[in-house]
Amino acid sequence: MEVGIIGANGYSGVELIRLLQHHPHVTLKKIFSNSTSGKNILELYPHLTELVDMTLEQVNIDEIASEIDLLLFATPAGVTKDLVPSFIEKGIICIDVSGDFRLKNPEDYEQWYKKAPAKKEFLQEAVYGLTEFNRNKIKNAKLIANPGCFPTATLLGLIPALQHKVIHPSSIHIDAKTGVSGAGRNANLANMFTEVNENIKAYKVGQHQHIPEIEQLIHEISGEKVPISFITHLVPMNRGIMSTIYCDLTEKSTTEEIYHIYKESYKNDPFIRIRPIGQFPTTKEVFGSNYCDISLYVDERTNKLIIISVIDNLVKGASGQAIQNMNIIVGWEETAGLTNVPLYP
Amino acid sequence: MEVGIIGANGYSGVELIRLLQHHPHVTLKKIFSNSTSGKNILELYPHLTELVDMTLEQVNIDEIASEIDLLLFATPAGVTKDLVPSFIEKGIICIDVSGDFRLKNPEDYEQWYKKAPAKKEFLQEAVYGLTEFNRNKIKNAKLIANPGCFPTATLLGLIPALQHKVIHPSSIHIDAKTGVSGAGRNANLANMFTEVNENIKAYKVGQHQHIPEIEQLIHEISGEKVPISFITHLVPMNRGIMSTIYCDLTEKSTTEEIYHIYKESYKNDPFIRIRPIGQFPTTKEVFGSNYCDISLYVDERTNKLIIISVIDNLVKGASGQAIQNMNIIVGWEETAGLTNVPLYP
Amino acid sequence: MEVGIIGANGYSGVELIRLLQHHPHVTLKKIFSNSTSGKNILELYPHLTELVDMTLEQVNIDEIASEIDLLLFATPAGVTKDLVPSFIEKGIICIDVSGDFRLKNPEDYEQWYKKAPAKKEFLQEAVYGLTEFNRNKIKNAKLIANPGCFPTATLLGLIPALQHKVIHPSSIHIDAKTGVSGAGRNANLANMFTEVNENIKAYKVGQHQHIPEIEQLIHEISGEKVPISFITHLVPMNRGIMSTIYCDLTEKSTTEEIYHIYKESYKNDPFIRIRPIGQFPTTKEVFGSNYCDISLYVDERTNKLIIISVIDNLVKGASGQAIQNMNIIVGWEETAGLTNVPLYP
Amino acid sequence: MEVGIIGANGYSGVELIRLLQHHPHVTLKKIFSNSTSGKNILELYPHLTELVDMTLEQVNIDEIASEIDLLLFATPAGVTKDLVPSFIEKGIICIDVSGDFRLKNPEDYEQWYKKAPAKKEFLQEAVYGLTEFNRNKIKNAKLIANPGCFPTATLLGLIPALQHKVIHPSSIHIDAKTGVSGAGRNANLANMFTEVNENIKAYKVGQHQHIPEIEQLIHEISGEKVPISFITHLVPMNRGIMSTIYCDLTEKSTTEEIYHIYKESYKNDPFIRIRPIGQFPTTKEVFGSNYCDISLYVDERTNKLIIISVIDNLVKGASGQAIQNMNIIVGWEETAGLTNVPLYP
Repeated sequence: MEVGIIGANGYSGVELIRLLQHHPHVTLKKIFSNSTSGKNILELYPHLTELVDMTLEQVNIDEIASEIDLLLFATPAGVTKDLVPSFIEKGIICIDVSGDFRLKNPEDYEQWYKKAPAKKEFLQEAVYGLTEFNRNKIKNAKLIANPGCFPTATLLGLIPALQHKVIHPSSIHIDAKTGVSGAGRNANLANMFTEVNENIKAYKVGQHQHIPEIEQLIHEISGEKVPISFITHLVPMNRGIMSTIYCDLTEKSTTEEIYHIYKESYKNDPFIRIRPIGQFPTTKEVFGSNYCDISLYVDERTNKLIIISVIDNLVKGASGQAIQNMNIIVGWEETAGLTNVPLYP
Repeated sequence: MEVGIIGANGYSGVELIRLLQHHPHVTLKKIFSNSTSGKNILELYPHLTELVDMTLEQVNIDEIASEIDLLLFATPAGVTKDLVPSFIEKGIICIDVSGDFRLKNPEDYEQWYKKAPAKKEFLQEAVYGLTEFNRNKIKNAKLIANPGCFPTATLLGLIPALQHKVIHPSSIHIDAKTGVSGAGRNANLANMFTEVNENIKAYKVGQHQHIPEIEQLIHEISGEKVPISFITHLVPMNRGIMSTIYCDLTEKSTTEEIYHIYKESYKNDPFIRIRPIGQFPTTKEVFGSNYCDISLYVDERTNKLIIISVIDNLVKGASGQAIQNMNIIVGWEETAGLTNVPLYP
Repeated sequence: MEVGIIGANGYSGVELIRLLQHHPHVTLKKIFSNSTSGKNILELYPHLTELVDMTLEQVNIDEIASEIDLLLFATPAGVTKDLVPSFIEKGIICIDVSGDFRLKNPEDYEQWYKKAPAKKEFLQEAVYGLTEFNRNKIKNAKLIANPGCFPTATLLGLIPALQHKVIHPSSIHIDAKTGVSGAGRNANLANMFTEVNENIKAYKVGQHQHIPEIEQLIHEISGEKVPISFITHLVPMNRGIMSTIYCDLTEKSTTEEIYHIYKESYKNDPFIRIRPIGQFPTTKEVFGSNYCDISLYVDERTNKLIIISVIDNLVKGASGQAIQNMNIIVGWEETAGLTNVPLYP
Repeated sequence: MEVGIIGANGYSGVELIRLLQHHPHVTLKKIFSNSTSGKNILELYPHLTELVDMTLEQVNIDEIASEIDLLLFATPAGVTKDLVPSFIEKGIICIDVSGDFRLKNPEDYEQWYKKAPAKKEFLQEAVYGLTEFNRNKIKNAKLIANPGCFPTATLLGLIPALQHKVIHPSSIHIDAKTGVSGAGRNANLANMFTEVNENIKAYKVGQHQHIPEIEQLIHEISGEKVPISFITHLVPMNRGIMSTIYCDLTEKSTTEEIYHIYKESYKNDPFIRIRPIGQFPTTKEVFGSNYCDISLYVDERTNKLIIISVIDNLVKGASGQAIQNMNIIVGWEETAGLTNVPLYP
């Protein structure tokens, strides 16, 4: 199978390259980037020396259509909404790691992304690629809107509780923490080493574009259209997201009851690890892997459920989940190319 | 004025030494530590070379009583409850950075600290040293229970909202993040560089001994006895605490209204900086200083107030606030010894 | 092939587990640790959840001999010198990641390790497992003394220059920098996060046990018995070693000439990457991989050759090289289990 | 005394602001920056909230001349060579933290800085502001060329050995490590958090502009014009420089003899701390302070002297030394404004 990556020069792009190197069934045929076309990927990423020797190319739709079966997009917001439709029309499967096709309602996109949205028909056609939730729809998808990193960690933490109606959707508070690679490989003052090191900051308070994405899924799962509290924090590390989620229980429960609901819900999901009661996952424990590790804790003093969910933002939060979705579409084993053990320490 | 430090070998102890070096009116007369007595402080902390040349001594109550006017305690939990009474009886002012005298109810101490509590009469005598809240009581105190690091950041963030009844006390969620120095200078696996670096973890979930301390103050301020949600996270940095606080507003409000309540509340407090609307503080912006920086944000979608409050856990969260309280008791300028500009970057 | 790990509870041990999980031909049969026996590995390393479910066992020589074909030792100094001979006598291949069999001269071991040395016959039998230098001897070895992390980075950087006599062995200065995982997973004050973060320190100045190991090889390669200058520094990162090596050229030369000597020397070595002229490797560019990346620079002002060599200390500097040696002994492809792409960023 | 800062928007500039806040005799009258003029310093550095409320201004020579007695320049290379002469002519004392006036030979500047040099007369007039070496000349200087960060750490480590002729100048190797703040506050890919974190890299190999500065001083002190080996490395921390210096002893000596030479040489220098034999300084032990800590070690196996010298690059390596020089010129106590205890941990 011939695969191409558009936007291969960013961190999600280069993570796709890494994971495809480990994939048993895929040939990475071409890599594209308009901003850095003409450069060899080794000029940007010398860690790939003797592993990948490819030149970044300009996107040429007809040329791509004749050579490539499946495209992975790791582009900034606002690029794929114009680019993807031409490839879909030519029968190429598109997996979009950016946010352009995630929100079904174009007004939501406009409001939160401050850009013109994709055409409604493509928004409708796109399948939201949260694998564990949408596996059946993904099988037949032509266009995958791969989820955002925060929504992935958060929703995987929430879904069983929402489906089993053990929490009130309107009570959800999400306090999220992320490493810096989520911001991409762009030189800007806020993400300089000196500014981030020995520091924590809250950012995009009340403005984060992942808010409507999470709310859309809560609505889809629970039937309730409710606003959520969601604050994101930048912490001094490269990779990793932790979502700490606080919810009111609909009735009295115990950690054990909730734990069993989650174990049962995810029993067939190879990348979800429900951690034993009393053990809480850290981001380093999924570093470099496609795992999402989840812990549950019922605080009996407040009758709240605390959910802690961690991922590697570049793997399960972006490129790993894209590969996982590709595997499902093509019919390969879901874990192909994704069997890396977390790197510790 | 002759001052001594008991427990000078830990991070709060050595931070007291640093701040006293900058203090215009204090002579540090003696330093004590039972576990490391006989050593020169320079064996433990060579950064003090040519600044401090003192030997750590065993605590001898009578000797201390004849030489020292005021004692600062930076000991682990469970030490001062037995030690402080003898000094109080000899008329020595005691400022206890540990948690032994913070909880008025001895059962709370037993439950959360898993140790025997101090005698009730001393618990009653102790003044809770959250300076901005208790300044008048502190003036005449003989025994200060200096607040915990998380309670300091959290309560300074909550007090004006509670006093003005703009939030429901029962709705408070606190998601707290801390640097590693809060754990003290003890060799343990969990705080090794390799385990903490490139990692976030939640810890003491549902068990943190600062929970009853925060609840006690919420009760004192609001009259309501309510359990709170409070989860602490360890992030890879040395110093700094951020409390992200989520509360339901009692009625519709705006960021601007809340901002003005806070500016007014803290107008005479030299160490509280209410940050302009739209600007959110980072921990590095108070690094090494006694400031507590606070931002307010009303999320009109959810009618919640988000409060972000940051301190340096070793300064305002421990030793700096202890010096601030000492200044008030003795009648010096409140900022004496505490005028350090935050170190940035 | 049935493999066991002795000392599986440390960082090199758990890195062996990770690499063996990726290995196509090996079954990890048993893991051992005297200090933590009886514990499941998941109690120590929850990142292995759902990947490895094994209990650490006490070492029992007879039991092991009946079940295991090859043993990997990741024990502290002083353990294998007593343990390995029994296994060798029973025909089990032993690969020792510790330093007990590296120094041919037992007095050197005594002097630098401050411990009793192994028996001379086993020191003689042991093959020094610097794969690229000793591949032919390794093929038939029964006992591998796997090189130290610093000697690996340093010697791979020096060998072609020494073999081609382009440098004076007596002129070699090595300034080495390492991440913290090299110190193992032991709670000690010096390696606490708070002590290492935002810090650099020189350590074991003039005392490092890797000095005689490097000198022994320089002697073996060049015929010259010369003392070297070698200072090690601890930097705030988990993984990675950089050796910056300064040597006097025997005659005038250029970067290009030296570059070609190195390219030629290592042309059949899959894990050595000689970086293009003018490009200098960073430790992150080999992170998690078995690569050793090397750059050459001739400083024409001083007629010196500067060699910069980087490895991941836990992979090529320990467990990865052990697997590489195992592959050669058994006759598998040298890269089996070691094809991980460096993780970046 | 009325002082102004030109280039107050960078890290050295804002460090000057911090130190002047602690200075007992100085009023910071004006701050300047052409690139950010019109902004309040708080827009760039909110950690100064309630401490400094000043607007960055365009440089206007006549206006400045009428209001300011002394100017501190924290500008990028190439700015002061044109700007300083006008101020000198108007009788304003100029302390230049940039490199424009350090090299006496204009061709050296052109070669290493790749820019046009300052006028020869001003190069001659400028006094090299390595305080401990040039204190007497500094007293009467009108123009100080404040030393570079690496030359400060390195030369303070070398001077006594050179003056006492215990080392061969031609044998000096310097392996230097620095934190990231030395690169200034400029958004560029190489200094992004994700690129620097968990990484070490060598940079400007053979090209560093501090090489001729160190050589010029070695020449001045020893009379020998020799090229040195000097390689700089970037390590993941904000502040701190360590120079590890390797030199051949002219005759056999001991650590103790060298130690006493250094203690004697620096006995009247309040900011130089010669560390006890066997103790090696770390960068964190001078963090935030104006100290330079130095250790000596004679390696009797190689007859080499190893010197380890550490500073905070923004304090003794830039702004602190500038204040120290200002104090000497004006006749204040040398330590005025510089009494901060190192911040640990």
